[in-house]
Amino acid sequence: MTQFVRNAWYVAAWSSEIDDQLRRFTILGDHIVIFRKSDGTVAALEDRCPHRLLPLSKGKRIGDTVQCGYHGLTFDASTGMCTRVPGQTNLPKSAYVERYPTEERHGIVWIWMGEAAKADTSKIFDMPEFTAPGWAVHLGDALHLKSNYLNVAENLVDPAHISFVHPTTLGSSASENVPVHVSTEGEAIVAWRWIRDAPPVGFFKAVGDFPGNVDRWHYYYLYTPCTAVIDFGSIDVAENCAEEDRDRGMRIFALHFLTPVTETHTIDRWAHIRNSALEDDEAAARMDVMFRKAFAEDQEILEAVQEEELRPQKRRPLRIAIDKGPLVYRKRINDLLELERTEDIASDPSPAFVYHD
Amino acid sequence: MTQFVRNAWYVAAWSSEIDDQLRRFTILGDHIVIFRKSDGTVAALEDRCPHRLLPLSKGKRIGDTVQCGYHGLTFDASTGMCTRVPGQTNLPKSAYVERYPTEERHGIVWIWMGEAAKADTSKIFDMPEFTAPGWAVHLGDALHLKSNYLNVAENLVDPAHISFVHPTTLGSSASENVPVHVSTEGEAIVAWRWIRDAPPVGFFKAVGDFPGNVDRWHYYYLYTPCTAVIDFGSIDVAENCAEEDRDRGMRIFALHFLTPVTETHTIDRWAHIRNSALEDDEAAARMDVMFRKAFAEDQEILEAVQEEELRPQKRRPLRIAIDKGPLVYRKRINDLLELERTEDIASDPSPAFVYHD
Amino acid sequence: MTQFVRNAWYVAAWSSEIDDQLRRFTILGDHIVIFRKSDGTVAALEDRCPHRLLPLSKGKRIGDTVQCGYHGLTFDASTGMCTRVPGQTNLPKSAYVERYPTEERHGIVWIWMGEAAKADTSKIFDMPEFTAPGWAVHLGDALHLKSNYLNVAENLVDPAHISFVHPTTLGSSASENVPVHVSTEGEAIVAWRWIRDAPPVGFFKAVGDFPGNVDRWHYYYLYTPCTAVIDFGSIDVAENCAEEDRDRGMRIFALHFLTPVTETHTIDRWAHIRNSALEDDEAAARMDVMFRKAFAEDQEILEAVQEEELRPQKRRPLRIAIDKGPLVYRKRINDLLELERTEDIASDPSPAFVYHD
Repeated sequence: MTQFVRNAWYVAAWSSEIDDQLRRFTILGDHIVIFRKSDGTVAALEDRCPHRLLPLSKGKRIGDTVQCGYHGLTFDASTGMCTRVPGQTNLPKSAYVERYPTEERHGIVWIWMGEAAKADTSKIFDMPEFTAPGWAVHLGDALHLKSNYLNVAENLVDPAHISFVHPTTLGSSASENVPVHVSTEGEAIVAWRWIRDAPPVGFFKAVGDFPGNVDRWHYYYLYTPCTAVIDFGSIDVAENCAEEDRDRGMRIFALHFLTPVTETHTIDRWAHIRNSALEDDEAAARMDVMFRKAFAEDQEILEAVQEEELRPQKRRPLRIAIDKGPLVYRKRINDLLELERTEDIASDPSPAFVYHD
Repeated sequence: MTQFVRNAWYVAAWSSEIDDQLRRFTILGDHIVIFRKSDGTVAALEDRCPHRLLPLSKGKRIGDTVQCGYHGLTFDASTGMCTRVPGQTNLPKSAYVERYPTEERHGIVWIWMGEAAKADTSKIFDMPEFTAPGWAVHLGDALHLKSNYLNVAENLVDPAHISFVHPTTLGSSASENVPVHVSTEGEAIVAWRWIRDAPPVGFFKAVGDFPGNVDRWHYYYLYTPCTAVIDFGSIDVAENCAEEDRDRGMRIFALHFLTPVTETHTIDRWAHIRNSALEDDEAAARMDVMFRKAFAEDQEILEAVQEEELRPQKRRPLRIAIDKGPLVYRKRINDLLELERTEDIASDPSPAFVYHD
Repeated sequence: MTQFVRNAWYVAAWSSEIDDQLRRFTILGDHIVIFRKSDGTVAALEDRCPHRLLPLSKGKRIGDTVQCGYHGLTFDASTGMCTRVPGQTNLPKSAYVERYPTEERHGIVWIWMGEAAKADTSKIFDMPEFTAPGWAVHLGDALHLKSNYLNVAENLVDPAHISFVHPTTLGSSASENVPVHVSTEGEAIVAWRWIRDAPPVGFFKAVGDFPGNVDRWHYYYLYTPCTAVIDFGSIDVAENCAEEDRDRGMRIFALHFLTPVTETHTIDRWAHIRNSALEDDEAAARMDVMFRKAFAEDQEILEAVQEEELRPQKRRPLRIAIDKGPLVYRKRINDLLELERTEDIASDPSPAFVYHD
């Protein structure tokens, strides 16, 4: 069974998905009721009354409280504490629901799934292009994938698959044998390659206007646990573009915010930031068409892989050279899980046993 | 896992659901084939041939026997004993199916799910208003609820929920803080309250004709394991009605006969007995509309609660003042289950160990 | 849980089901990709890439290799060995998929599900009437049954059920009490009976032309694990036909090739060989109508039996005289399973313990 990294910020929703209605979201297997308070900020509470377990999302919002739809127990949206138990005047200590810290930025609602005391908003993923001049931000869909988040994340640090999974959109057979570089940059795992002097791939035929061959790049940045940025683009081969001058070409950051729903269900909220056609909504729509086509290709693969993973396995899976990025990712996730499992021990000042030499 | 109380009478069906066809019913997890014999009485047999396990309901009735549809083994409807094995002349001892005692009263077919020797028809639920003059009996629907019977039964000894679950039908916010009384009367657990001098609730607006405020009562009688009677009604506030004079008002007994199907599926066959509009089928139909609306409100709650109960629980559920009735019910059920588990021990004349002082 | 006999030939498909496309079949719980190679012979490989487990059937055929649709690993159709790993030049030892021996005969594709070294094509079921003059072969449907293969096979060595399950097609009540003979002939279990001097049953009314009563025979041959031949026919009672002279009548071999898909799903590919109306496709079509009707009757029974077998059972099933054939079959299957479980032990030249007298 996969474990989830809990001390982390996850994307709960696009801002546009949240309003003053009580809405249920499922994240890391927890049911959570999310809504906007009267001041417009986002509240997130455990979606289960501690009395008879009815989801609070079946109840109703009364000001900045939520009233359970079964017996009227009422909870404060900010603290989760019970403020009323009909039929009695005292409030039992255990009358509360968990509340989850949230933070809203650039049209994205983040939620902290771990210990509230550790929630540090400075750790939320950000990049200057969200607000810098010369860049356009476009939020896309919430793609539901019946696959474990680890499989989905691996796919996002894996340039090698695009030659085979996306031959008419993001890749082409020209790249089948072009080596992939992998490194780490702080919290990011980076896998990248340039395909030089080849015809533009389907995506850039659809949204670009290149007269002949291009240099094309793919840089995959994967941030644990669940954020990926794919910096990809093309530039006329005659421009002789250096690796660090990618802004000179048609450059697109494809963003993927993964939300693990259950062991076998992940939402991929995808968006892009581009340096071309800044005011052109039509251009964004044309890109969305290509993205949807490419991500449907991933979906078929990822869901089939998930089904097979659930069946009996007679052999250890084979690992090959192109798996470098995914392997570093899995190791980082395991280290985070191990840290969460053992941090209570580490903080214990009186060890139960002592080693002697 | 819930256990079922087996030494008890349950409602198998309305009489109108049973005819001379072989029909399968599932009660306490048992598949049972039920049909009328040539004398019109109801037979109930284990719905599984002991040979190759084919349900007998897939076979055919031949007189007062049932012939299996696979190899023709034939069973007597009254005793369950095999009367024919094609291809041989002897009848093996183990060639039989279980038979269940049944009893039909007031258009209701009761079935005994425990040891046949303990079936005592004098224990079947009855009330004089079924046949007394001045009362009209009206049988309603068989409502399928994807919820454990304990959750459904609790709901039927819980006047507090109606303010929140049924605000436009059976209750109103006027009753939110009116205290609930709970007591026991023999085999019944009783929870009740009067809401004095308030506007009539939706139900009585639809079926009554009150000019102004009314006194309204709800008496919930829950008989273990699975029968509930809700005595509710309204009377013009000017009548100054005493608690014991409820017949003077518009009085309705809502009856609920719960049949546990499986751990997570219960049938609620509901009916009512009323002291008004005795010959008026239109009035009964108007009441059914209101009942169906109210019970659909319960259904949404009870099925959501069931789903949550099946998920992992991190905390013990909270119990509050209004849970008195449900808590007494759960205790009585547990006592009955314990009795069934231990009665074989109690009847053992030679104990394996003896206490000494 | 049922175990499957693995060292055996099973029917994978009719020849007409296999072409040059990659198609997934599930046999004994294994997913297998089957297709024709460029020389027309049939390849069968484990349908799962050893790298990221994507089914190879989601990839593409390139000549006589299969390329995985995720990262392009390529496997030889004849050997299952990996011939290419994009991104690297070496081929890891564990880069292979299992391959299954196959053999095609009379329009039927057989597959060997056990150790490849033991695959002996001389053990494949055959009968001279497939090619002998005076006989017409007609392949029917692939009938999917949601039932364990043991239940399906038992039904095919069980003449007693036809009086009850097929009273209007293959049987009639005239045979209810006619005894069944059971014997073994080499690998076959044989159950048979003659019903003398009775009206023709529905099947022979539809496809024969008998003026009056007939002698009718049913010989059920069941070959372990999964092939059945039912030799049945009718002849005018005036012909006074001896048992060994069945060719004189209207004789039909109904063939059933069972393919266990999972524990609870079996495919029955049925066919017939007849000695009448040899060139008459209309006659074959009329027979198919009757077969489909009769097999739908079996399907209802077998799927209901399977459902009951999965439920808790309080008693040991009853066994009766007509079960002789099925009981011999179950014993033979158990012996084969025991043999497969213990053959590794038997081949061990240095026993771990030694008995002394």
